[in-house]
Amino acid sequence: MSRPVPLFARVATVVRNGLPESWHCGAAAVVTPEGRAVARLGDPSLATYVRSAAKPFQALPLVLAGGAERFALASADLALICASHGGTPEHTARVAALLARGGFTPADLLCGAHPPMDRESAVRLAAAGAPPTALHNNCSGKHAGMLLACRLLDLAPADYIAPSHPLQQSILGHVARLAGLRAEEIGVGMDGCSAPTFHLPLAAVARSYAALAHAHATGLDGATQAALERIVHAMGEAPEMVAGPGRFTTRLMAATGGRVVGKEGAEGFYGVAVRGPVALGVALKIADGGERCRDGVVLAILRQLGALSGAELADLAEHAEPRLFNHRGMRTGEIVTDVQLEEMDLMAGEEV
Amino acid sequence: MSRPVPLFARVATVVRNGLPESWHCGAAAVVTPEGRAVARLGDPSLATYVRSAAKPFQALPLVLAGGAERFALASADLALICASHGGTPEHTARVAALLARGGFTPADLLCGAHPPMDRESAVRLAAAGAPPTALHNNCSGKHAGMLLACRLLDLAPADYIAPSHPLQQSILGHVARLAGLRAEEIGVGMDGCSAPTFHLPLAAVARSYAALAHAHATGLDGATQAALERIVHAMGEAPEMVAGPGRFTTRLMAATGGRVVGKEGAEGFYGVAVRGPVALGVALKIADGGERCRDGVVLAILRQLGALSGAELADLAEHAEPRLFNHRGMRTGEIVTDVQLEEMDLMAGEEV
Repeated sequence: MSRPVPLFARVATVVRNGLPESWHCGAAAVVTPEGRAVARLGDPSLATYVRSAAKPFQALPLVLAGGAERFALASADLALICASHGGTPEHTARVAALLARGGFTPADLLCGAHPPMDRESAVRLAAAGAPPTALHNNCSGKHAGMLLACRLLDLAPADYIAPSHPLQQSILGHVARLAGLRAEEIGVGMDGCSAPTFHLPLAAVARSYAALAHAHATGLDGATQAALERIVHAMGEAPEMVAGPGRFTTRLMAATGGRVVGKEGAEGFYGVAVRGPVALGVALKIADGGERCRDGVVLAILRQLGALSGAELADLAEHAEPRLFNHRGMRTGEIVTDVQLEEMDLMAGEEV
Repeated sequence: MSRPVPLFARVATVVRNGLPESWHCGAAAVVTPEGRAVARLGDPSLATYVRSAAKPFQALPLVLAGGAERFALASADLALICASHGGTPEHTARVAALLARGGFTPADLLCGAHPPMDRESAVRLAAAGAPPTALHNNCSGKHAGMLLACRLLDLAPADYIAPSHPLQQSILGHVARLAGLRAEEIGVGMDGCSAPTFHLPLAAVARSYAALAHAHATGLDGATQAALERIVHAMGEAPEMVAGPGRFTTRLMAATGGRVVGKEGAEGFYGVAVRGPVALGVALKIADGGERCRDGVVLAILRQLGALSGAELADLAEHAEPRLFNHRGMRTGEIVTDVQLEEMDLMAGEEV
């Protein structure tokens, strides 16, 4: 194929009273667990930051070291370690309990504080006159998991998010390995929660999600396969811990009984592990970093891949094309999704 | 020129630790008061909603009917009628006083309520346990002006925002006339404040802003010229009323002493009346409707047009390429503006 691939494709239009007002573009990659690229939107080699969609992989050092057994982690615990949670009382209590199991307190968290993403929890907290704490940070589960990994691996927990910290070096190694890249090929920046975040091509992230979807079809070692299986199983079993009430990520996993496991990242990123009927990994970037059209675009991609049944699509319909309302609650328009996933030549499907 | 014009051009990149993470596109038109297109970004014939950037023109029925004299409007009053204000105590008190001059109360406003856009005012209001009112709505000045126009023109004020209301029909007529279009060519939708909002090409909006910049160079009638002069003068004289503390729109007008008058609209819209050294009108749309890169793009366009002095650009530098920080206040990156305004052939400059 010598035709140049445009960096981004149009994915959604914001419509007001039937007329277009704003436009969103995106790029996506769809890859098999064997590492074959099978579909794309825009340029699948586009590199960007994976942000919170890296969380299932950031949990690997803990799980590989036997952390699930050592700290008696339930699926809900492991799911919360992979979460961008809503900061509900259920989430924060469980993070506090996780910290305690390693002898830590919320003061050990280096994620910073922000009001709960869950609106009802945020309103309740504000009404109580209580300032948000690090426990409410949507990444506090990930940070608790990192601290537990330090405890287990006997690493200094004081500066556990420094890019040079052995734990972060280990995470970078896992991210590279699952992506089929060398660590030196991955860019590192500081995430919203101050932990390292990773810059790599969409196709490489899709390959990692494909490994999460069906680890046994990859060439990874048995321990890594088992750890990935454990993580994806936990997320699918406790979807309410991975995001929060009413959120798309939670509802996607709940609607599919964990057969399709999704994880959002900031700035319009989304990763999906489709465990069946055909195992696939998907990575999506909304170019402008916005999130209002993202869930609908994910659904459109999954529909075109045949990854969701009609009943599942119907169950998730409210996320497909959100309606827009104004300050008096009057309907002003909607977001119309328009995704044309391009199939890549399966025979020639190049390894990513 | 047979070369197709891309709908949008890249205007900004969101960078994290030196690597690109998200991308913004936009389109813009630059037009003279005589109606000649002189520069563009992407496709200047792109049509979208002008949103709050229509406010200076929505004030025309009031001003043309002698409202400024009848209600003894100071520049600050007229500026507030053209504003997307911050809902500060200064703004809300002045809107309440405007309403009272026409025998109205805040209960007559149909804009709905939202928390003040000005963060400090929003925090104070919340701390006082007071819910936001219609006075705090950023459009309450515009709505007060519409009610005053109804009083002056003896129109029923009960449903003053209905698209079929004679006041709204009059406003649509003015918007069309200034844009060089027929009213039937303009799409109408419902704005965030429930008033009608207008869908028309960027070049047509730029032409309207050029008329605001230098009304006497247009072929408009003398009364309209005088009304536009009055409006742009008021905005330039009371920039703190048009937006609010620290906001780009207020600072742009303050930095230029009212020589450059700007007005933002929701969904990434911006209109500018450059009154000198060369009078021009500018209309800009950020494709995705986002606002984080908009001020920087406006500054880049004005710089390339020679519309701002070095001292003015230095004064506004903090708006040019915003720095980004995370939940712990640590610098994570910045928004890098990259605007390549294309000059259009001045000799062949087509009338818009």
